[in-house]
Amino acid sequence: MTSKRMGRQTVRLSNPPSIAGHASVVGKKEGEGPLKNSFDFISNDSLFGEKTWEKAESKLQKQALAGALDKAGIPASNLEYIFAGDLLNQCISTSFALREQGIPFYGLYGACSTMAESLSLAAMAIDGGFADWTAAVTSSHFCSAERQYRAPLEYGGQRTPTAQWTATASGAVIMTSDGPGPYITHITTGRIVDQGIKDANNMGAAMAPAAYHTLSTHFTETGLPPSAYDLIVTGDLGFLGKELVLELFSRDGLDLSSNYNDCGLMLYDLKRQDVHCGGSGCGCSAAVLSGYLLNGMREGRWSKILFAGTGALLSPTSTQQGESIPGICHAVSISTTK
Amino acid sequence: MTSKRMGRQTVRLSNPPSIAGHASVVGKKEGEGPLKNSFDFISNDSLFGEKTWEKAESKLQKQALAGALDKAGIPASNLEYIFAGDLLNQCISTSFALREQGIPFYGLYGACSTMAESLSLAAMAIDGGFADWTAAVTSSHFCSAERQYRAPLEYGGQRTPTAQWTATASGAVIMTSDGPGPYITHITTGRIVDQGIKDANNMGAAMAPAAYHTLSTHFTETGLPPSAYDLIVTGDLGFLGKELVLELFSRDGLDLSSNYNDCGLMLYDLKRQDVHCGGSGCGCSAAVLSGYLLNGMREGRWSKILFAGTGALLSPTSTQQGESIPGICHAVSISTTK
Repeated sequence: MTSKRMGRQTVRLSNPPSIAGHASVVGKKEGEGPLKNSFDFISNDSLFGEKTWEKAESKLQKQALAGALDKAGIPASNLEYIFAGDLLNQCISTSFALREQGIPFYGLYGACSTMAESLSLAAMAIDGGFADWTAAVTSSHFCSAERQYRAPLEYGGQRTPTAQWTATASGAVIMTSDGPGPYITHITTGRIVDQGIKDANNMGAAMAPAAYHTLSTHFTETGLPPSAYDLIVTGDLGFLGKELVLELFSRDGLDLSSNYNDCGLMLYDLKRQDVHCGGSGCGCSAAVLSGYLLNGMREGRWSKILFAGTGALLSPTSTQQGESIPGICHAVSISTTK
Repeated sequence: MTSKRMGRQTVRLSNPPSIAGHASVVGKKEGEGPLKNSFDFISNDSLFGEKTWEKAESKLQKQALAGALDKAGIPASNLEYIFAGDLLNQCISTSFALREQGIPFYGLYGACSTMAESLSLAAMAIDGGFADWTAAVTSSHFCSAERQYRAPLEYGGQRTPTAQWTATASGAVIMTSDGPGPYITHITTGRIVDQGIKDANNMGAAMAPAAYHTLSTHFTETGLPPSAYDLIVTGDLGFLGKELVLELFSRDGLDLSSNYNDCGLMLYDLKRQDVHCGGSGCGCSAAVLSGYLLNGMREGRWSKILFAGTGALLSPTSTQQGESIPGICHAVSISTTK
């Protein structure tokens, strides 16, 4: 076993990369929610000046990356790798966002876990000695996701009570080999967990077992109890998924209620904003991380966060074929000290 | 700049991972082509015993992974990471192939460059000190790809002369930190290149500029001339794309005609098998690598290969919106000596 490895799924980075810049871009609805003051750019135009929802989503990613580069104080040409992906078929919002950037690019698909996946790989590229500067980016857009996964908005379809609202949002994080932090210190890579949930309108329930599996594996392999973190945050299980994670941990005698939250619940005001079970989409946890969470770490609100992105690895085709929903969760420890 | 880095896009691995096992699984048509003796399993049933094309593609991946693990002589539980992806919306053939394996999983989307992308990241995970055993897997299926990207087969659509044939194929490679080789020695990560080609039935032309860019960057940054390789192989540009790459290099005064080929041309007999410009799909280069190329290296036919996976990062939606086709190419040096 290599010296970095703490168990089957967890590694401790030997020279934790430092987050040098981060930026978030969101749509109007997200900009009216409880975290509105933490975002770098809020657009009142859902099309972001473009002609289609997909092009709008590409624009979101471009703006988030540009903002993060600006804060890091480097040009795109300093980046040695960018790890990025999104929810759209063939990840086109990413490809079209990055095609003029000239940055060595690895495309990812992790559904709503993509921000945690891209953070993990961007950190490993630096800690492994392959790069000094890397970036992690992802996005989602309510309108591009609705017409792809469910139905065009013009149909006016009703949403079930367990449905989540795909965030119109993007987040980008730039990291480097040497800096004042916050640092990526540990990475727990998820395994696919499928407990047989087949309701594509209840993805919180489908992903909760994967979140529980990765988080409990993280606590076991690192030897860190949940209380070692100021905040444990999943993204995005929503109201029901969060309740399930709390329930699963309570069976193990662990009470996470005081320091656990979910990005899908943090992004919107569930009582006021009509998003049913909460937010979802790659951009939800990405924008909450790149805005509220990393800002809060810099301001001294938290010194140690466990960021756990959760993804539902389904497609409309797999649902039509009667398949259940495989879930995955990747967890990344972020700390103000190495 | 880190000690492993040779330039903006290329790294030299400090302790090159050794390929411990590799296996390929193909359909009937691929099993009737010139490389038929190099595959581990050829199925005469396009459904591979399943009820849908998507489930058949998952089965292909499962069989390729099982074959590679068997040859490496390890159980799946030894793998610390698997890097995998495919062409289907939300990469479902991968998610469903891997959901029962219990392997820490990072999902990728690189279109037909996925085998080179997964090889790169699986090698970096070992060389970076994160793992001792990793796997790279991908697949494609003619029937699942046709109905998703073009039209259901039942429509009997005509194919244009520049069209390529999506291979029904999967390849898996297992690598480890210590072994007798062949070794992954260098990785050149691609940037997105888009020269404005808009014809989704001429993907060879769309990807050729990306292949040229990555290959010429590789030669420049490593200082290795094309003649340093016994074989340079792209996958999958097909007949037209290969001609374009030769033409682009000839403008630089470089003649690649003696040691350059393309997996899309190697997999089928173009005169006899009615595949127009040649093969394509993630599984094409994956199966040619995991079968013919790595077998040939073990048998002493070649000692140094540059494997360059090429992907067209389009979707039917981006084409319908009038977009051009962004291309990418990742190159991996494979050598019988460190």
